[in-house]
Amino acid sequence: MSSDLAPRPVDPVFFEQAVKTIKGLAMDAVEQAKSGHPGMPMGAAHMATTLWTRFLDHDPTAPEWIDRDRFVLSAGHGSMLLYALLHLSGYDLSLEDLQAFRQWNSKTPGHPEFGHTAGVEVTTGPLGTGFAAGVGMAIAERVLADRYNQPGHAIVDHHTYAIVSDGDLMEGVAAEAASLAGHLGLGKLVYLYDDNEISIDGKTDLSFSEDVLARFVAYGWHVQRVDGHDAEAITDAIMAAKSEATKPSLIACRTVIGHGAPTLAGTAKTHGAPLGATEVDAAKRAMGWPSEPFHVPEEVRQGFAALRQTSIERRQRWEAAFAAYRAAHPQLGAEFETVMAGELPGDVLAAIPSFSADDQPIATRKAGAKIVAALAHVHPGFIGGSADLTGSNGVGMPEIAAQSATVPGGRAMFFGVREHGMGAICNGIAAHGGLRPFDATFLVFSDFMRGAVRLAALMKLPVVHVFSHDSFYLGEDGPTHQPIEHTMSLRLIPNLHVVRPADARETAAAWRLGLTRKTGDGPTAILVSRQNLPILPHSREDISCGAYVLSEADGPLDGILIASGSEVSLALLAQRELAAAGTHVRVVSMPCWEAFDAQPQSYRDEVLPPALTRRLSIEAGTTLGWSRYASASIGIDHFGASAPADELARQFGFTVEGVVARYQALH
Amino acid sequence: MSSDLAPRPVDPVFFEQAVKTIKGLAMDAVEQAKSGHPGMPMGAAHMATTLWTRFLDHDPTAPEWIDRDRFVLSAGHGSMLLYALLHLSGYDLSLEDLQAFRQWNSKTPGHPEFGHTAGVEVTTGPLGTGFAAGVGMAIAERVLADRYNQPGHAIVDHHTYAIVSDGDLMEGVAAEAASLAGHLGLGKLVYLYDDNEISIDGKTDLSFSEDVLARFVAYGWHVQRVDGHDAEAITDAIMAAKSEATKPSLIACRTVIGHGAPTLAGTAKTHGAPLGATEVDAAKRAMGWPSEPFHVPEEVRQGFAALRQTSIERRQRWEAAFAAYRAAHPQLGAEFETVMAGELPGDVLAAIPSFSADDQPIATRKAGAKIVAALAHVHPGFIGGSADLTGSNGVGMPEIAAQSATVPGGRAMFFGVREHGMGAICNGIAAHGGLRPFDATFLVFSDFMRGAVRLAALMKLPVVHVFSHDSFYLGEDGPTHQPIEHTMSLRLIPNLHVVRPADARETAAAWRLGLTRKTGDGPTAILVSRQNLPILPHSREDISCGAYVLSEADGPLDGILIASGSEVSLALLAQRELAAAGTHVRVVSMPCWEAFDAQPQSYRDEVLPPALTRRLSIEAGTTLGWSRYASASIGIDHFGASAPADELARQFGFTVEGVVARYQALH
Repeated sequence: MSSDLAPRPVDPVFFEQAVKTIKGLAMDAVEQAKSGHPGMPMGAAHMATTLWTRFLDHDPTAPEWIDRDRFVLSAGHGSMLLYALLHLSGYDLSLEDLQAFRQWNSKTPGHPEFGHTAGVEVTTGPLGTGFAAGVGMAIAERVLADRYNQPGHAIVDHHTYAIVSDGDLMEGVAAEAASLAGHLGLGKLVYLYDDNEISIDGKTDLSFSEDVLARFVAYGWHVQRVDGHDAEAITDAIMAAKSEATKPSLIACRTVIGHGAPTLAGTAKTHGAPLGATEVDAAKRAMGWPSEPFHVPEEVRQGFAALRQTSIERRQRWEAAFAAYRAAHPQLGAEFETVMAGELPGDVLAAIPSFSADDQPIATRKAGAKIVAALAHVHPGFIGGSADLTGSNGVGMPEIAAQSATVPGGRAMFFGVREHGMGAICNGIAAHGGLRPFDATFLVFSDFMRGAVRLAALMKLPVVHVFSHDSFYLGEDGPTHQPIEHTMSLRLIPNLHVVRPADARETAAAWRLGLTRKTGDGPTAILVSRQNLPILPHSREDISCGAYVLSEADGPLDGILIASGSEVSLALLAQRELAAAGTHVRVVSMPCWEAFDAQPQSYRDEVLPPALTRRLSIEAGTTLGWSRYASASIGIDHFGASAPADELARQFGFTVEGVVARYQALH
Repeated sequence: MSSDLAPRPVDPVFFEQAVKTIKGLAMDAVEQAKSGHPGMPMGAAHMATTLWTRFLDHDPTAPEWIDRDRFVLSAGHGSMLLYALLHLSGYDLSLEDLQAFRQWNSKTPGHPEFGHTAGVEVTTGPLGTGFAAGVGMAIAERVLADRYNQPGHAIVDHHTYAIVSDGDLMEGVAAEAASLAGHLGLGKLVYLYDDNEISIDGKTDLSFSEDVLARFVAYGWHVQRVDGHDAEAITDAIMAAKSEATKPSLIACRTVIGHGAPTLAGTAKTHGAPLGATEVDAAKRAMGWPSEPFHVPEEVRQGFAALRQTSIERRQRWEAAFAAYRAAHPQLGAEFETVMAGELPGDVLAAIPSFSADDQPIATRKAGAKIVAALAHVHPGFIGGSADLTGSNGVGMPEIAAQSATVPGGRAMFFGVREHGMGAICNGIAAHGGLRPFDATFLVFSDFMRGAVRLAALMKLPVVHVFSHDSFYLGEDGPTHQPIEHTMSLRLIPNLHVVRPADARETAAAWRLGLTRKTGDGPTAILVSRQNLPILPHSREDISCGAYVLSEADGPLDGILIASGSEVSLALLAQRELAAAGTHVRVVSMPCWEAFDAQPQSYRDEVLPPALTRRLSIEAGTTLGWSRYASASIGIDHFGASAPADELARQFGFTVEGVVARYQALH
């Protein structure tokens, strides 16, 4: 609701007191925890207080208000800055919570955690990722605004602000996101750069002497430079940034890290350790502050209370405006409420195409392409794309407009060759709410975006990752492009569902699984094949059980072949050969370990009876880990090679004879 | 040996024929393989041929010549460009090899592979990583030159060239490396940018509209723009780039992808698929070329033979110069030969400090710091550092100069907050030869550089990665910083040794292990603790066995506690408690799975007797995978939390009582 550009008037005496309060709280909390980062909050207190008191449009009493401005503390180590502001602004964060900084079960962990503390928009700490998440939020805002706003009804209209550090700007993930943000002309993105020239190793000029602002101009950003301790200059710069509607803005605020610490200010020593009682006392004396810890003057409380009242009133005006919108546009209004609640609008899952065993064999990436195209039509919040492998990954949305500077509602994302940025941007889209983001690349390049995949899992965001070319069967591109360890390494990430469908039907089921997850559940990775795969007679369209008996033994049950993805059809062929030789085995398709492990023990025992100890797993990836379910494994524990897929399968032992021989050799 | 700036004279008729030959070979090989990327080699043939015929200082008959110029095809998908040039130049790559493009066991895999094909300096394909590797090579060159060159003896004096693509320049890893290259003023780095405005998804303006050259100016690079099909313009630009000794150079060569393909040139269709027989025929007709596949005119063969003769003579002049140097500076000369052969100079391993069980408990990162400081003195090629966590990771080299624009010999690297760039740069340093690179960050941020870690493993380069803060025991920084899945996920990468030492002594052993590996073996990851760990009475200074009986049961052997890292001391305490309760177990310290798995079966059975089935593993990381050795596991399969380490240990069950109870519950 930030169409209003003018800053709120703020009494200068209150402002200075507020800044000192924040500095004091940051020093005290870090001191009490004997751990933390006091320098950043002290150096950035002026800029953050300016932003929060004069511009940020939010309502601490309604942290989930949809049209609030988003604020990202990309420099997440400065968490006490955010916690102090949340506390003073009136969020559900008490002084006792601040005093429990970095303690077990507190609301004030070392780095801000989404879903854990009200008012934290995104989990930060891993540098650069908050920067990119903010880009995702700005994309979400413009896409939602484009769909839902109607003449006279601007129900989606807010800015995304962030405070970013030197470290953020050194990270490649931020570079990728910045280039894309400039390309897309995200005019409602306003970043304050805490340009303190200090990082952990010392002065940034040890490793970072580029002209940051010139770089951002090259990306297409609007840039300014101000004194980061001059509230008026910061105010003017934010005004100018908001006036620039076609470019994202970076405001370099030259600050002194640990500002106010008499002997340590401006040094790396203030970065990641308590200042020590002596320095804290001296700092407080120097700013005319009582030495008592966690001091909050009554005037400061009152000033924030007044601001809060204004915030509540603004939010209430939005509620009234939304009610009018809802009345004027009942259908859109209802849809908006549905998507903002994280629900699927209409019967989206029913639109997922069906595949029949009578259909021709089809690569699961190509089955995925049909699914994505179908979802694109029925889900107005379905947004995503690939890191420059749209066709290869099978995530094209041919009839949906591309997101661009001139098409703000475009939902077909072209991320460029920027995997990590892509993943972190999708996290921001998901954290914003209202849209269902997906991204895509080759499975092997999940490595490039692993930091973002992990953060989605940590935040429990329902991002869908499509990772295609999921094994050495991609063939000629060779070992640089052939995933070996990736399927298993993704399974190691908590909260992430890894689904490797056996055929087109299980691919449809994988998407159902992914779309059914919500914020609070976590992300889903769908691993699809380059090569064609037959559609199996009894494969399932619902794989929420994680694994199931695809083909029962045709005789006395000797053991089990457990397979995922493209190896399921191989298991079926081996089952037949074994039966011909008088050995009868069951074939279990296991597309999703995490879903299977969540089933009741009775179901798991039904699929994998404990008494049945002869169990051979088959998966075109590393075998490490399969001993959880199998007594022996066919896999590949070395790098691949460049050759046609069939040749590789022979060389690597993925043949019917190979499986049969290996099974027969089991004790 | 490229102090000579002037380009070699090249007959223009030969040149044009050579370009056509390369285009023809690229089209034919891709056609024959029915797979590959013809567009890039066709578009970049002019620039590559200009570089290779007029500038590149190498000797195809001696591909390992130390002072050769390095050439990196960062756009590795254009591998046929490189293979054609290697073949024509006279490397060990026959026409038959080209005809076996992308086939099993051929020397011409889909993407260039280091160690597989003579003349390939680094494995490329994952975009951006070649760009960064070249930066590492240029760093290696200047460090070696600084140490070994003497007045009148410039034995190390070569350039690093690369061809980089739009995709390379979109990747964050390249952005990180570019910023550092500019900061360091790597004047002998000359990159040709194949600016063809096309990527897989179509025109680059779908996602990439930044002003690339302005961005590189901001990084401190020297930039030029030329017509990429104008050999004279390219020649002049390379001359100018070489003349600029204090800045790396980027030459944007505007090219047409698939140049010469009559209907497809300039389109994404030429990028990643064969052109088809009709288009190939038409292309050949248009350039006046016979339609027979793999045509190489005799004049072209002769022209390259003449160039080769010049190359051989230049290399021989260097050999003579080196002999003179060797005579004048016998000690340096001998050391140079040793390090360039990948051997450790002198008795480096003996310099690794010893730790005694009488010493105070010490964090393994701090023990590592002592080791790194000692190695820095005795190994003149020991180079590395951290991604802005030098002190935290324990990799400072206090008495060694920092690598900088003004200190070209500095071996203390300050990589900035650029993990992926750091890893890829270290790969380049290692691939160059002569130095022993190491890098460092928190274990959790190994995710950010996983692409580079994998490439080091694929190339079998002996890079050492130091990953500190190796578990939730890092405490208050919370789940964003606490590795859970990382130890196991690194173990999944082939060729990588993952070492998690139990104490200071095993940390010294880990470094011994890492430094003993050579090119052809692979990289080593050393995982060290934030927290203090006691030095254990019987821990080993040689852990090349991977795992060993640290403490035998003091009574009839009931089972085994297997642990790594900080959990080994916990296992010892539990062993004592269990013994007090009458249950006698052995404690096995297992710092390195890969080394253990490489031991003879007899040794493995000695340490883990098959009859002893009660085996409990203890590791502060994910349990998935431990079923390989253990019947039950204590680990952590969810994300961590922000709190003091001791509190977390209690909450997560890493207590003596917890271990004892779990062991006692084993069947």
